[in-house]
Amino acid sequence: MSSKRLEAFAVDGIPLVQPGDDLGALIIAAIEHSHLTPVQGDVVVVAQKIVSKAENRIVKMSSIKPSERALKIAAEINKDPAMVELVLSESKAIIATGNNVLIVEDKRGFILANAGIDRSNIEDSENRALLLPEDANASAAKLQQALNTHFGVQLGIVITDSVGRPFRLGTIGIAIGSAGVEALQNLRGNRDMFDRELMVAEHAVADAIAATAELLMGEGDEALPVVLLTGLNQGTSTQTAAEILRPEHEDLFRK
Amino acid sequence: MSSKRLEAFAVDGIPLVQPGDDLGALIIAAIEHSHLTPVQGDVVVVAQKIVSKAENRIVKMSSIKPSERALKIAAEINKDPAMVELVLSESKAIIATGNNVLIVEDKRGFILANAGIDRSNIEDSENRALLLPEDANASAAKLQQALNTHFGVQLGIVITDSVGRPFRLGTIGIAIGSAGVEALQNLRGNRDMFDRELMVAEHAVADAIAATAELLMGEGDEALPVVLLTGLNQGTSTQTAAEILRPEHEDLFRK
Repeated sequence: MSSKRLEAFAVDGIPLVQPGDDLGALIIAAIEHSHLTPVQGDVVVVAQKIVSKAENRIVKMSSIKPSERALKIAAEINKDPAMVELVLSESKAIIATGNNVLIVEDKRGFILANAGIDRSNIEDSENRALLLPEDANASAAKLQQALNTHFGVQLGIVITDSVGRPFRLGTIGIAIGSAGVEALQNLRGNRDMFDRELMVAEHAVADAIAATAELLMGEGDEALPVVLLTGLNQGTSTQTAAEILRPEHEDLFRK
Repeated sequence: MSSKRLEAFAVDGIPLVQPGDDLGALIIAAIEHSHLTPVQGDVVVVAQKIVSKAENRIVKMSSIKPSERALKIAAEINKDPAMVELVLSESKAIIATGNNVLIVEDKRGFILANAGIDRSNIEDSENRALLLPEDANASAAKLQQALNTHFGVQLGIVITDSVGRPFRLGTIGIAIGSAGVEALQNLRGNRDMFDRELMVAEHAVADAIAATAELLMGEGDEALPVVLLTGLNQGTSTQTAAEILRPEHEDLFRK
């Protein structure tokens, strides 16, 4: 990560993604349509929404039967019982609640409002919801294989979602899945400018890559769901975004 | 923020900053030395450490006399009493504690381990500590004025620090001060791709800019404390990084 220059390009020409689409092929076509040529070490950042759509992670709200537990929580926090049921079905634990707010540890270990379930940017969103990919690291690995094969270089993939945070307003992009990226760069043992061992030891590189890409991705009808980052030295790490999950026993902010 | 391309350049030639240095002049000289030419809307990201050093926010640890309260907390959490005293003197409230961990709301409202006080990358770090700038938004505004005047364009400034987070491992850059940057971009009222009003309403743009720059800044003896971001449309906002502070009553994760 000693690059001195970094470039990020929003990739044009990603169509409206449909369930069953070959997302790797769509991304390759759009990169070529945008006259971009990924080189060794580049990272392709992909918005979670199009991964979830391609993987048909769409749920009809009318198909959801809220359990007793979901009905009780929904009444307590003033939230749609079907949505509560859906969130619980994607979760391991409730982390915090507020008025119409349900923050959970999802099945994969991410702490997210509504388990990352999205009800915007989907057709017929009054009646449908979009779940996170079942395993976004596997989704990233599959995209990596397709892109590496096509372009003949080793690329990193980051799948990003916009999330809220404790203490700070506004959403920021984080990595919910990755392949070939040093998600958590270990600085332990490095020396500072005065030859003292650095105490802060890890940099959440995959999250920084996600946050960078989201500066270009936009929102709503201007959404550009794929960004190419060049000037990084990624593509070969065996880490995934799971590296960044803080174990519960090391976390001071879980109840 | 509808740019389709973003470039970030690490600025070469920032010397070891000393108390009393004219940081604006140093940054201008280094930008020119790097053959970079900022244009209207660009953002210059500056690492907190060099701002603090220029502002002489250096404290000798031997000058600290721990209070009874600091001694008690230090014993409870197994931490240097002088450091606890210094952290408390920079803080409004204790947010969470653990073994040798003291997370506070600092005087400016930031939730930070050790109130952002740094004991690496400073000469004689066994005996000295570096505090955050007294008012990093004011520091940013002063830099903005110097750079705008010199380059004849309107630039944004972000002062960044690397911080830890609940739930996720690794540090990430956040904006502890800014000038001329739309720190919190309001998306409320925007429409999604299917003409439904977006529910997630704000993007923490200044934090995303900070995270981007830190991909280039490095750590330790390879540190590059100034990054120029081009391809943004900033420079004119009257917001500061204080916009991103989540009010306590809206925060589910304060005890």
